[in-house]
Amino acid sequence: MSPPPPSTLSRTETLSLGTLTAACFAILANAFQGDDKPLIVSLALSGLAFSASFALIRWLGPTFMKAGFKGVDLGKSSRREIPECMGAVCAAVYLFAIIVFVPFVFYGDVVAATSGGGNRDVVLQVEQVNGGRFLHRFPHSKLASYLSAIVSLHTVASLGLADDLFDIRWRHKFFIPAFAAIPLLVVYRVDFGVTSIVVPLQLQPYLGQLLDLGALYYLYMAAVAIFSPNSINILAGINGIEVSQSIVIASLLVLNDALYLLTPYPHPATDSHLFSLSFLLPFLGVSFALLYHNWYPARVFVGDTYCYFAGMVFVVVAILGHFSKTLVLLLIPQIANFAYSVPQLFGLIPCPRHRLPKFNARTGLLEPSVTMWGEARQPNRVVGAALKGLHSVRLIRGVWDDEGRLMETSNLTLLNLWLVWRGPLREDRLAMEITGMQVAVGLFGLFVRHRLALLVFREDNWAVLGGQAGG
Amino acid sequence: MSPPPPSTLSRTETLSLGTLTAACFAILANAFQGDDKPLIVSLALSGLAFSASFALIRWLGPTFMKAGFKGVDLGKSSRREIPECMGAVCAAVYLFAIIVFVPFVFYGDVVAATSGGGNRDVVLQVEQVNGGRFLHRFPHSKLASYLSAIVSLHTVASLGLADDLFDIRWRHKFFIPAFAAIPLLVVYRVDFGVTSIVVPLQLQPYLGQLLDLGALYYLYMAAVAIFSPNSINILAGINGIEVSQSIVIASLLVLNDALYLLTPYPHPATDSHLFSLSFLLPFLGVSFALLYHNWYPARVFVGDTYCYFAGMVFVVVAILGHFSKTLVLLLIPQIANFAYSVPQLFGLIPCPRHRLPKFNARTGLLEPSVTMWGEARQPNRVVGAALKGLHSVRLIRGVWDDEGRLMETSNLTLLNLWLVWRGPLREDRLAMEITGMQVAVGLFGLFVRHRLALLVFREDNWAVLGGQAGG
Repeated sequence: MSPPPPSTLSRTETLSLGTLTAACFAILANAFQGDDKPLIVSLALSGLAFSASFALIRWLGPTFMKAGFKGVDLGKSSRREIPECMGAVCAAVYLFAIIVFVPFVFYGDVVAATSGGGNRDVVLQVEQVNGGRFLHRFPHSKLASYLSAIVSLHTVASLGLADDLFDIRWRHKFFIPAFAAIPLLVVYRVDFGVTSIVVPLQLQPYLGQLLDLGALYYLYMAAVAIFSPNSINILAGINGIEVSQSIVIASLLVLNDALYLLTPYPHPATDSHLFSLSFLLPFLGVSFALLYHNWYPARVFVGDTYCYFAGMVFVVVAILGHFSKTLVLLLIPQIANFAYSVPQLFGLIPCPRHRLPKFNARTGLLEPSVTMWGEARQPNRVVGAALKGLHSVRLIRGVWDDEGRLMETSNLTLLNLWLVWRGPLREDRLAMEITGMQVAVGLFGLFVRHRLALLVFREDNWAVLGGQAGG
Repeated sequence: MSPPPPSTLSRTETLSLGTLTAACFAILANAFQGDDKPLIVSLALSGLAFSASFALIRWLGPTFMKAGFKGVDLGKSSRREIPECMGAVCAAVYLFAIIVFVPFVFYGDVVAATSGGGNRDVVLQVEQVNGGRFLHRFPHSKLASYLSAIVSLHTVASLGLADDLFDIRWRHKFFIPAFAAIPLLVVYRVDFGVTSIVVPLQLQPYLGQLLDLGALYYLYMAAVAIFSPNSINILAGINGIEVSQSIVIASLLVLNDALYLLTPYPHPATDSHLFSLSFLLPFLGVSFALLYHNWYPARVFVGDTYCYFAGMVFVVVAILGHFSKTLVLLLIPQIANFAYSVPQLFGLIPCPRHRLPKFNARTGLLEPSVTMWGEARQPNRVVGAALKGLHSVRLIRGVWDDEGRLMETSNLTLLNLWLVWRGPLREDRLAMEITGMQVAVGLFGLFVRHRLALLVFREDNWAVLGGQAGG
């Protein structure tokens, strides 16, 4: 077995991270001197989060392996052990950054609130400060939302860690995100309680402009909260794919936020999208640090912790920012992967413990992994016919023997399907192509959201129906 | 090695826990039908938390041991391994209970807030509801405090778990609670910002009635936050002592809260103390379940997680309830233990890795553990004289050889000191006596707080100077 990966920073890495850290601290120190611009502060904190994650992932490798967080990379010839569950480091750094960010976000309110007692000087000063920069303000009532988001993220990170520690069973861990979403939904109920959605034009004659879904809206949010983290967790198994898809989704959400901030007039949803940015930028910071170490050939694994955590970050910003439908659009590849997996997940087709693509040691390439159908467990007639049909349209690859008995079928995951289509690929090539596909589908999703939406809704972000319902 | 402790509930236990659970659910269901009394709800949730912790501690034993959370009891002849870090289960159940509690606490506000839009019927109804039960209301602005408390507790639980997992070095883990206190202090700053304390009568001519400590007040709170969890963590080492001292402190805080709720007129600090109760009652629930399993002879260990968590629960209620000085009074045995330990903690006297009392397998009793002074490392003259002095007033037990060379001294912990005074004791007897001492000192502390305080402050809780500053 080859030695574990190094656990120190190279000279170049130390210098670069040091410079970045110093620059970010300079920005923060400046921000403390009264000229607070949360977006700049958030960027600086994201830079610090990147540096901290990068260094900690490297340094903590041996500690994690000693504590039992280690695994063997099944997609390599050298079967060396590398640290597992490094997403926990990212989650910890992220939460720390987000908590430290609170006073910056609420700076204006702090001064106004604590100088109470009729001290007009200070209040005036705040008003002056705010006058020039309306973009940077969060309403004070958002503090609870902000904190509930932190509680949810903290919960999902803890439960993810418990999963990595105790190997929770599939049917139990499916509901981990639901538990984590409770604080979010509880505070949503206490603090907003908006359960109306904008009705598409075509249905307005029957339902009115806004439809109050009531309790159903909470069910819908819970469903999104359960789906998003799990969907990231099942589009996994090759180096870098968990992190790269998360980075793509986060970046597209940032792009979406930017569209609202760059409108020619102050948009009513500005606050929601600043809120979203303040959660997404540090997430991008820690994720890039992780990607560097997890990209092919991986020197660390991310663990379920990262997948759940990433999925929950998206849920948090989408729910509190009222754009959960946009999130669903960006998760289309994950939805496709899930839908494609359903026959195996629900036992219609046998499901082996691991379905990740098979590493061919001779060629060094990945090939679709397969489920073997023995003599004894042939599919029934309906499933058999369906599999034949799917094979003929190249949605699976099946092998039948001369007597028409099913020998094997490729496993039902997007990664295997891609290999069925594209032929054997090297691991990083596969990760790159899937990531590229995620970018393309996501950009198309945003295009649909912002251009074609006018076909079914009367207004879009460039001319909005009062309030932020729907999204 | 003997077999691990059982991991199933007995028939009687199942029946009792089942009954308790059913009763608590009945109370909760009733509370949902409009007649919400948070104190009753909190009691019901505490009952559920007790049942859940009790069952989970039992059931998860094998899982924890498989994941490496296990240890050998040094104070027993049979050196069997038992599950370690069960405080993590308590912390998880506790956090879940506290999060579920949020909608009950803010029920009235929820109805008022979400029915907004001029729906007077509902608002009126809420006013009627409140009219009869002024005691049960938390102001809506407390939501952020409540959530920040959850974030702090979550953080300390995670860091405690990291400590149990990775065995963090002493000089690092000392600051774990400081990190965890950040959310609390940040939100304190954003949300209250009260940094004034009531000045003792004798000093009022010089300082005025209220003294604004400003940033110093945050330093003071941070110091309390660092001290409380660490002090619980170092008064440890025999079965049950970590949990029993925490239960005593929590119970005395509950008693203190009750004193404010039972005043003949509505007390301005009522809200703070209801808030405190809603955090303390579920804590007592999970702690009793843990004590049952951790009491002599222990079937599980609690782990650093529990100690940090317990200490932080006290910090949270004391800081957000503005009675941190009362907490300090209740921590007197812990302060004494810390002060007594200082010479060893700071290296004036050699400090072995473990200082817990020594188990004498022949008698089955605990004796003071000792530090050996070899020929080569005799104390310098000042320390030597000090040790002789302490020995003569029975504050340590030392052994000198015929030539006046120091051979050994008892380790500087309260548990060893108690054994120096009382002679060898069985483990449960020692735990009981220390717990009894904690009760006596705590009751005296509360007496001082509520009776003698009138000597130095003009008002006490039976006639208060406007506001809740100080406490």
